[in-house]
Amino acid sequence: MSLTVAQAIEARRSVKYFVRDYRLTAAEEAALCDAARLSPTAFNIQNGRYVLVRDPAIRAEIRKAAWDQPQVTDASLLMVLCYDLRAWDREPKRYWRNAPEAVATQMVSEIRDFYRDDEELQHDEGLRSSGIAAGAIMLQAKALGLDSCAMDGFDFKRVGHLIHLPPDHEISMMIAIGRAEQPAHDRPGLLPADDLIFNDGFPHAED
Amino acid sequence: MSLTVAQAIEARRSVKYFVRDYRLTAAEEAALCDAARLSPTAFNIQNGRYVLVRDPAIRAEIRKAAWDQPQVTDASLLMVLCYDLRAWDREPKRYWRNAPEAVATQMVSEIRDFYRDDEELQHDEGLRSSGIAAGAIMLQAKALGLDSCAMDGFDFKRVGHLIHLPPDHEISMMIAIGRAEQPAHDRPGLLPADDLIFNDGFPHAED
Repeated sequence: MSLTVAQAIEARRSVKYFVRDYRLTAAEEAALCDAARLSPTAFNIQNGRYVLVRDPAIRAEIRKAAWDQPQVTDASLLMVLCYDLRAWDREPKRYWRNAPEAVATQMVSEIRDFYRDDEELQHDEGLRSSGIAAGAIMLQAKALGLDSCAMDGFDFKRVGHLIHLPPDHEISMMIAIGRAEQPAHDRPGLLPADDLIFNDGFPHAED
Repeated sequence: MSLTVAQAIEARRSVKYFVRDYRLTAAEEAALCDAARLSPTAFNIQNGRYVLVRDPAIRAEIRKAAWDQPQVTDASLLMVLCYDLRAWDREPKRYWRNAPEAVATQMVSEIRDFYRDDEELQHDEGLRSSGIAAGAIMLQAKALGLDSCAMDGFDFKRVGHLIHLPPDHEISMMIAIGRAEQPAHDRPGLLPADDLIFNDGFPHAED
């Protein structure tokens, strides 16, 4: 199975009930990790970090911290999407190591100027990078004939403890991936395009 | 042109120099908007808002507010990705209007309990939704034979003013989309998978 991007966008739906004990192949897992790793980040700082939770005991503990949602234990794969708030300051030259020396030096300088002393930006950048990666991961899952469920209804602090989240890191969401037990219901209430998409600016009184 | 998801993930790169005056078809624009609109959001609150900036005069003003980066004016399409911080509170029943009445009522109650009085969560949810949509938009662009550049190096307040950003809304990023003037350089410094992806948890001393 190998959907085009447009097909995957159309077909992707969030599902909560997965076939238990359904195993992904190593190639499928690698494809899902590639979706994360090859996603773009500002200044190429690659601030996303991804924890694949395989241990059933950890899954059970996370489920307790996630309103007992069944996909946490039943999905084939549970990814916890995290980010390093200080990725920009961790040997940033390696993010540009294949670029000409002058470019790499310039980029490192720009990176430091952009993020230094701005904790709100470091946080927001983590969520942007995580979100972009999540979009790619879920489309990749669909193209592999799998379904997914992005989640943020859980105790972030408790899950952080369970996955040994390091200092200066935060969790953005989790994604459960596997084979859906049954097809998703119809979309429950898709808004019309005119409510979401605007030309040149939001509706407003003339200035 | 119609890439599979895996092909688009592999081929997508950020580019900054676009062929000026290259026009997208209406079908291509619609496909890019669908990528945004069909992306998942928590509780289906559809909090993303998307401004397509077409007016060259507004583009020129945004470019001034974005370190004079050429893609702002030269790309075929400039999307400003925004979100409504209070989408959860704007007639939330419509997000579940096709669901059975009892389900819709339950969801509205859960939505209110989840977001009410939590401004940090409302903000973070906007960035998550925007990021997920951005991931889909950029892969859709690649599948259409186009290239893209996600940007957050600009004066958010000034751009908000230019697009008449309403109260309770924020900008997450911009994406420039069009035909690349030349192929992207090689990836400048992709980190090894072992630096980004972990099994069951981050490396740690035994508890």
